[in-house]
Amino acid sequence: MNRARPSLAASTRMNLESRLEKHRTRLDKHLARLLPPEDAEPRALHQAMRYSVLGGGKRIRPILCLETTAALTDRTAGVEDLACAIEFIHTYSLIHDDLPALDNDDLRRGQPTCHKRFGEAIAILAGDALLTLAFEILGRMPQPEPYRRTQILRELAAAAGTRGGMIGGQVADLDAVGKKVSPEQLKAIHGSKTGALIRAAVRSGGLFAGARGRTFEHLSVYGEKIGLAFQIVDDVLDVRSSPDRLGKPAGKDAARHKATYPAVHGLEASERMAAELVEAACAELEFLGPRGGILEALACHLLERTA
Amino acid sequence: MNRARPSLAASTRMNLESRLEKHRTRLDKHLARLLPPEDAEPRALHQAMRYSVLGGGKRIRPILCLETTAALTDRTAGVEDLACAIEFIHTYSLIHDDLPALDNDDLRRGQPTCHKRFGEAIAILAGDALLTLAFEILGRMPQPEPYRRTQILRELAAAAGTRGGMIGGQVADLDAVGKKVSPEQLKAIHGSKTGALIRAAVRSGGLFAGARGRTFEHLSVYGEKIGLAFQIVDDVLDVRSSPDRLGKPAGKDAARHKATYPAVHGLEASERMAAELVEAACAELEFLGPRGGILEALACHLLERTA
Repeated sequence: MNRARPSLAASTRMNLESRLEKHRTRLDKHLARLLPPEDAEPRALHQAMRYSVLGGGKRIRPILCLETTAALTDRTAGVEDLACAIEFIHTYSLIHDDLPALDNDDLRRGQPTCHKRFGEAIAILAGDALLTLAFEILGRMPQPEPYRRTQILRELAAAAGTRGGMIGGQVADLDAVGKKVSPEQLKAIHGSKTGALIRAAVRSGGLFAGARGRTFEHLSVYGEKIGLAFQIVDDVLDVRSSPDRLGKPAGKDAARHKATYPAVHGLEASERMAAELVEAACAELEFLGPRGGILEALACHLLERTA
Repeated sequence: MNRARPSLAASTRMNLESRLEKHRTRLDKHLARLLPPEDAEPRALHQAMRYSVLGGGKRIRPILCLETTAALTDRTAGVEDLACAIEFIHTYSLIHDDLPALDNDDLRRGQPTCHKRFGEAIAILAGDALLTLAFEILGRMPQPEPYRRTQILRELAAAAGTRGGMIGGQVADLDAVGKKVSPEQLKAIHGSKTGALIRAAVRSGGLFAGARGRTFEHLSVYGEKIGLAFQIVDDVLDVRSSPDRLGKPAGKDAARHKATYPAVHGLEASERMAAELVEAACAELEFLGPRGGILEALACHLLERTA
């Protein structure tokens, strides 16, 4: 028997949509400011960086970071730097993932991928440059105090790294192509490939606000669960959605024999698992009281997304 | 008329060689400890990282960092972490530089390059992982105090970055292939491609020791000049040396129509310029008195190297 799927009331959904739109506008401006200008040398490289970062995107990770900080404190000044650094790490991973030697994708967000547009050499270096820029920003952002900044640095570097982090997940994902993977292996792949950076977005937003102890633990579990749910929904959308909506071909995972939740658990069970994860994630936010409302709504929003 | 080339007395040379050898042994052990173990998943990735870092190398950048710190203070405990982070950044840049889409090199230090040995996907991700690991180490190293650590982070990220940094230099280097470049352009390319990280090795060693003001400025000029000299010597060796000695084919720059000092200034003028840079670099160290002896010897050593 299916439990009720966690979902948003229509009024909350409208409020959330307008809030997200405001975040995206603010973030896009801040991302554009932090990126090197297009007319500075080397131009092709800077153009490729700006093309890949500013060509749309849901900005889910930086928004999670901003909202986590805002749920804990009113002193949020300066957190946009951190949020944008996270988006740069995310974008670098997309650029490298799309390369011919990896996923060999031609389209991303409805546009040619970075290497299709600028060539492979520039795409490799633009990815490198975005990762480097992310860490430079963490080094120079004025908030929080330096010790907290080094904690945030460790958090993001580990989440982007090889052991349980994003790069480790990418390798495991490539390794699993065409193989039979167990549910546990699949969970580990998704948790590292996608989950780790989403969790780190929440945790680093928490660290920015000074979170520790039980507060930090609750946020960690929330972040972990929505991170996994996010990738399951991604898998499901690859089966259910259309190329127009996704901005990239649909059905690609199956065609490539990728390890996905629908392939291992079936479509309906995958949807149920994502819903259960979101529900459990929201339960972690009780300690926040009404201040947790937006993070709850965000979790439901990730479940309901269609692209 | 040629000025005398700065060079080392035989006894100094022997002392320096044994000191460098000790550094290398210590650094190799520390690098091996900081790298993920080969038997941890994802294995191929961790093997590729270890293969590329531990397969030899002169360790010039980390040694410059260690010796700069040691020239300024006796409190050097913990500086190996920083030195190894710099070597990881250097190694990542070599792995990506060697890729088919960039320099397309098959040999490095006499061994197959990372992508030749592990495939392109793993090589791209191993480079990414080393860059990420470098920053993780900067985040978690216990020394110096956090504010200094964020300064060091900024220093290294900027030196590895796009504007006057390593990635910017790599793009400019690729752009310059087959073109006529002015002496000023060539100096800018070499200064960013190679010089920036060498300068940052010196400066971050200085920051670790608490250097500021005039001290920091002298170290910066020293680092800049030996960084440029180092790349000029590299260019000269590509003309003069043998593949056996270099561990990679010689004469490759000319075959590829790369912008080099010998191509623009001729061989002898290039050698003279490198010698003058080293001489000027050493003049910056006067303020250190006898404590600057090793850094002086190191600068001469870079000039005299044959591989």
